[in-house]
Amino acid sequence: MFEADATIGADVLATTDVWGVFTHGTKSLAGYLRRLQAGGLRAQGKPRVVAEGGGWATVDGDSSVGMVTSVFAMQTAIAKARQQGIAYVGVRNSCHFGAAGYYAWLAAREGLIGIAMANDIPSVAAPGSRGAVTGSNPLAYAVPAGKRRPMLLDISTATVAGGKVYAAKARGESIPGNWIIDATGKPTTDLSGFPHSCALLPMSGHKGYGLSLLIETLSGILSGAAATWGVRSWAHDDATLHTLHGAAFMAIDVKCIMPPEEFARKVEALIDEIHNSPRADGVERLLVPGELEWERYDRAMKEGISLPADVVGNLKLAAELAGLDQPALRD
Amino acid sequence: MFEADATIGADVLATTDVWGVFTHGTKSLAGYLRRLQAGGLRAQGKPRVVAEGGGWATVDGDSSVGMVTSVFAMQTAIAKARQQGIAYVGVRNSCHFGAAGYYAWLAAREGLIGIAMANDIPSVAAPGSRGAVTGSNPLAYAVPAGKRRPMLLDISTATVAGGKVYAAKARGESIPGNWIIDATGKPTTDLSGFPHSCALLPMSGHKGYGLSLLIETLSGILSGAAATWGVRSWAHDDATLHTLHGAAFMAIDVKCIMPPEEFARKVEALIDEIHNSPRADGVERLLVPGELEWERYDRAMKEGISLPADVVGNLKLAAELAGLDQPALRD
Repeated sequence: MFEADATIGADVLATTDVWGVFTHGTKSLAGYLRRLQAGGLRAQGKPRVVAEGGGWATVDGDSSVGMVTSVFAMQTAIAKARQQGIAYVGVRNSCHFGAAGYYAWLAAREGLIGIAMANDIPSVAAPGSRGAVTGSNPLAYAVPAGKRRPMLLDISTATVAGGKVYAAKARGESIPGNWIIDATGKPTTDLSGFPHSCALLPMSGHKGYGLSLLIETLSGILSGAAATWGVRSWAHDDATLHTLHGAAFMAIDVKCIMPPEEFARKVEALIDEIHNSPRADGVERLLVPGELEWERYDRAMKEGISLPADVVGNLKLAAELAGLDQPALRD
Repeated sequence: MFEADATIGADVLATTDVWGVFTHGTKSLAGYLRRLQAGGLRAQGKPRVVAEGGGWATVDGDSSVGMVTSVFAMQTAIAKARQQGIAYVGVRNSCHFGAAGYYAWLAAREGLIGIAMANDIPSVAAPGSRGAVTGSNPLAYAVPAGKRRPMLLDISTATVAGGKVYAAKARGESIPGNWIIDATGKPTTDLSGFPHSCALLPMSGHKGYGLSLLIETLSGILSGAAATWGVRSWAHDDATLHTLHGAAFMAIDVKCIMPPEEFARKVEALIDEIHNSPRADGVERLLVPGELEWERYDRAMKEGISLPADVVGNLKLAAELAGLDQPALRD
């Protein structure tokens, strides 16, 4: 793998950990390495623009690591948005891209509004279905906010990400009734069948389901990628096979459209207004999207980062797969 | 008011009723008329592009009726997307625009993917707030689907639209615990304080809240419109004042990006796949977004439409305000 590509992958995964989103950070590195070694990901792959117009492009990821393709695609969207005000880039032949929010942030740190989304192998039910129909299809945005850190939202269109259900099961915790359905399609709090005979429920029922189909359309169809059951699991399917994930990136260049100082002032005012809004009894502060993640980021940059045991275990596995000395992780 | 503008407004409101979305159709006509007569809406207003670039435009609605400005704005987005592949149009000085889905559909019926959104006076809480922080900020999309009717989703970012809470209160029905908060900021099922000391809850908590802030950014800030408490209520505030609503419209031209036949085939296949997915016990069919609305549409076009009593009452009021004979509505 070229060093530049490895650096990109490392920055995406480490930044994700620094935000405290450990489910999507370096924890996945061993899985990507396994796929790289087996050939399902191509270390020599080179994402490229295969078709384009004024405000759009289609990127073929050439089965590179998802982070490499996604950074290339968002940079393409940013460059085009600077010309036209807005741009859409659809991605095919990609893989799991980690945290969608990272790519949205790439745009926001350059003064653009960024939107990122991707499809995945189905794990989420449709209202009334028995079993999964759509992926957990994540959606993220980032909005530059002047003197403040960008507003940053990164959500799955399922009620909760599958990782939370795994964690509850591992800890023997009970779950609310709107997280999963059982093998018959009924909502359940019984985790014994998860994940094999269960599916996640979409957030807010038909609303999350509907949004996931827009994400599928922009990520999986308009990009020429695989869709729904045509996508392979990056973690569980045969590591010699390409996963065929799709993704979509949009950027809107604020300074094409209005004076960026005016935009910044108004976003700052919106954030101040929210911070100063009346709070429910017992609530200490009201947050804007990403605020907690940026606080974790600042703390980690100063004090280092405390990795959960499962992340440490996966980093050790990754070192083993790469034939490196075990990482020197402090307990 | 110019006849062309009146025709546009009538088509938006009647189509909304025909889809069965009676909360956002002709029911609102009397309210718009009252505002037109008082001067808060300008019958002679003329929406126009005040700034533009390759893939974007800012439209000033000139305090015209929201439907007139919104149709003009989406048509502007469609024309620009045909050149650049994608376009964003921000709208200022608009008013309540009714059902967001109508404008998304304008794009889809011409082969483009359409997205429509708007801000509104705050009625929805942030996680932890006491009282409203954001509008119910609707989001709609429409995706052309070849031989089938477009996929069409039109949602509020609140758990439920305020209209549903009003209806439950009027009928003395109980509501789930995730619809509203009381005056102290706690979720409640007690409707006695609604709407004055209550706020709606965002759909899926921080997810709906986060999406509503993206909508506010694109509709209320990047457009140069009013935002949050700067927007006035079209229904309740002084009818002599402009409401200063913002909105945003996006269009993506499929045929710029991929052969439209291939796109249509893939969307049709996605819909077929969903229709043929396993169903939970007792579920007769799985639906894609908009499917129910299109069935109501077809039925209404054949058999006419049965208007709820509150819509009829408001149409009679509208006729009175306009100095027309009472409409001949069959019971």
